Amino acid sequence: MALIVQKYGGTSVGTPERIKNVAQRVAKFKMLGHQVVVVVSAMSGETNRLVALAKEVQPNPDLREMDVLLSTGEQVTIALLSMALMELGLKARSYTGAQVKIVTDSAFSKARILDIEERNMRADLDAGHVVVVAGFQGVDEKGNITTLGRGGSDTTGVALAAALKADECQIYTDVDGVYTTDPRVVPEARRLKTVTFEEMLEMASLGSKVLQIRSVEFAGKYKVKLRVLSSFDDEGEGTLITFEEEDRMEQAIISGIAFNRDEAKITVLGVPDRPGIAYQILGPVGDANIDVDMIIQNVGADGTTDFTFTVHRNEYKKALEVLKGVQAHIGAREITGDDRIAKVSVVGVGMRSHAGIASTMFRTLAEEGINIQMISTSEIKISVVINEKYMELAVRVLHKAFGLEEA
Amino acid sequence: MALIVQKYGGTSVGTPERIKNVAQRVAKFKMLGHQVVVVVSAMSGETNRLVALAKEVQPNPDLREMDVLLSTGEQVTIALLSMALMELGLKARSYTGAQVKIVTDSAFSKARILDIEERNMRADLDAGHVVVVAGFQGVDEKGNITTLGRGGSDTTGVALAAALKADECQIYTDVDGVYTTDPRVVPEARRLKTVTFEEMLEMASLGSKVLQIRSVEFAGKYKVKLRVLSSFDDEGEGTLITFEEEDRMEQAIISGIAFNRDEAKITVLGVPDRPGIAYQILGPVGDANIDVDMIIQNVGADGTTDFTFTVHRNEYKKALEVLKGVQAHIGAREITGDDRIAKVSVVGVGMRSHAGIASTMFRTLAEEGINIQMISTSEIKISVVINEKYMELAVRVLHKAFGLEEA
Repeated sequence: MALIVQKYGGTSVGTPERIKNVAQRVAKFKMLGHQVVVVVSAMSGETNRLVALAKEVQPNPDLREMDVLLSTGEQVTIALLSMALMELGLKARSYTGAQVKIVTDSAFSKARILDIEERNMRADLDAGHVVVVAGFQGVDEKGNITTLGRGGSDTTGVALAAALKADECQIYTDVDGVYTTDPRVVPEARRLKTVTFEEMLEMASLGSKVLQIRSVEFAGKYKVKLRVLSSFDDEGEGTLITFEEEDRMEQAIISGIAFNRDEAKITVLGVPDRPGIAYQILGPVGDANIDVDMIIQNVGADGTTDFTFTVHRNEYKKALEVLKGVQAHIGAREITGDDRIAKVSVVGVGMRSHAGIASTMFRTLAEEGINIQMISTSEIKISVVINEKYMELAVRVLHKAFGLEEA
Repeated sequence: MALIVQKYGGTSVGTPERIKNVAQRVAKFKMLGHQVVVVVSAMSGETNRLVALAKEVQPNPDLREMDVLLSTGEQVTIALLSMALMELGLKARSYTGAQVKIVTDSAFSKARILDIEERNMRADLDAGHVVVVAGFQGVDEKGNITTLGRGGSDTTGVALAAALKADECQIYTDVDGVYTTDPRVVPEARRLKTVTFEEMLEMASLGSKVLQIRSVEFAGKYKVKLRVLSSFDDEGEGTLITFEEEDRMEQAIISGIAFNRDEAKITVLGVPDRPGIAYQILGPVGDANIDVDMIIQNVGADGTTDFTFTVHRNEYKKALEVLKGVQAHIGAREITGDDRIAKVSVVGVGMRSHAGIASTMFRTLAEEGINIQMISTSEIKISVVINEKYMELAVRVLHKAFGLEEA
């Protein structure tokens, strides 16, 4: 008998019919003698419906109230799934985040989990119940409803698996595993049987949106065995995310090509090249709660330097405004930007021990006439920023160049 | 400065536009220096949508999970209204029933309020916030979400007013007050400036469904000043429900004509006229959880008696079956019934001190050739049961006979 946490996303619970299918799948695991905790998202479309309602009332909605509003989405699903499980003759009980309780900090719309009370869930599991938990939500220490941000249901699933020391956390989604890249861009993309935690992190952060990045970090931290599976395919074994390189079955150098067009770049031109200038530029950006991804600084010729970084595209305008506000103070000549960029990365733990990955990547892009605007590297990935119109082309040629279509 | 609790029903908050209108109205009271607590229902249509979803999944939905599901309706509204209030520059904070907390028993779908914590709301009010509370819902002592049953938002409003010792509880609805009768039946029906609590109880229980009866009882118990107003009319002063006859401004003898076609009558003919026979007849009916309204017993000539009572029309068939099952045991000659009846009542605290009300009523009906099938009286009302086809006619002629169209 194992304890399994299963997480189903919005598409998997998008209609009453699909909710009944999820109940069938849960029942199958229950019949095998496992204890099952199910974490669910809002029914697909529901979150967007609620956001639209909010914007009609308050164009820039208050974050606390937004969390109160959005958390109803998952609450609807837990009730419906519990009903569907009972209809199959199982015992089931729903829990909101507050009822669990999943204690978070008070950062509305992007709260972090601080603690999970497992006592009530454990008692229900021991009494034979399927425990159905609302993903994406928690409660702060004052009793305010919080949400973990979009995609936070994955985090809930992993956090519950960690708290309950579950044997496996299964993330059901509309894809049947982690692919070498997005099959919509490269039809030859191939499902990976395993992927290391670090590769997965890079793939997730770079836009291969199978799992939310925080959930993968969480899984790594607490050594939760994480499996990505399709909720529409009863046979597939999905992709197992491993935390040790030795667990890795396939010894490919490169695991996949990730991409992301959610970013924008901002360049601060002609700032004095003196100590502390990076902080003077990024300090105000950080104070405005804007996350920065890639950062590049080039030394110029005349004692000044150019400084480029990327932010989420939604925060592009805000970041530009913040910097224009401090332009005089930091002594910048000009502040420019571009929100029509894309980031493309090759990812693989294998590249640690293999030279030549970077040159293969750059040559491949050059042969297609794709100009590289920024480069950033880590132990297991190489990322480039290019004009977004070349993104699909870049992904396709790189996928082929690294032989990823071969099993 | 007064503390006002305002309750808005589903129609009043049915669209983002209407929610903004409610915010405008709340702002007006806030600008006058009042402290305001707002209780809201689910947006109109939302509860039905959720019920339909549940029934698709579980035809006979689990009551605990149904409450988890339905409580999301009001949670959506509190978030949206709080946003609308902030958009007007007011400080506002939403509370679910659990957040308040409104402690109830664990009777899912029809819970009763046991206790209300007023501390957090009070602190918010003192800090200048509008407090926005989800109606209809609470939380039991184990943390389960409960609902008070349909229409329970009125009860929430009154209970909060009682807990906070509010100066007035304003119930906004789609009518602008309590009328002498239903204006759809009698166009000359007139809004009452005041109505006593007892009259209101009779009006409500007899089908003038302006307020949910439990909320009126609650208001009476805790002496909450209750006012019914229209949320679509900025000028009207609604109807004030008073608890002392002396509060009454208008000294009319009769306040209104109530009516109800939700009942059916059952007659048990020819039972032995002996002690205990009423219990033998009504005991099995009560055991079947069927509420009985009017009861009449006539002595016959031959040592037998006829016994007539009314039940809700929905329970007519069930009540007939129950009685046919015990017919032999109680020795009844025949059991008959009629579900095409209506009850029409004249209501008014003034009738206590005025003779002739009954005779005016009976004469008025006789002049129209309307046969009276049953009569029942209390201190402040006289009710008759008639053939339902005469109901509107009876209401119109009685309204005129008692001069109710005159201010």
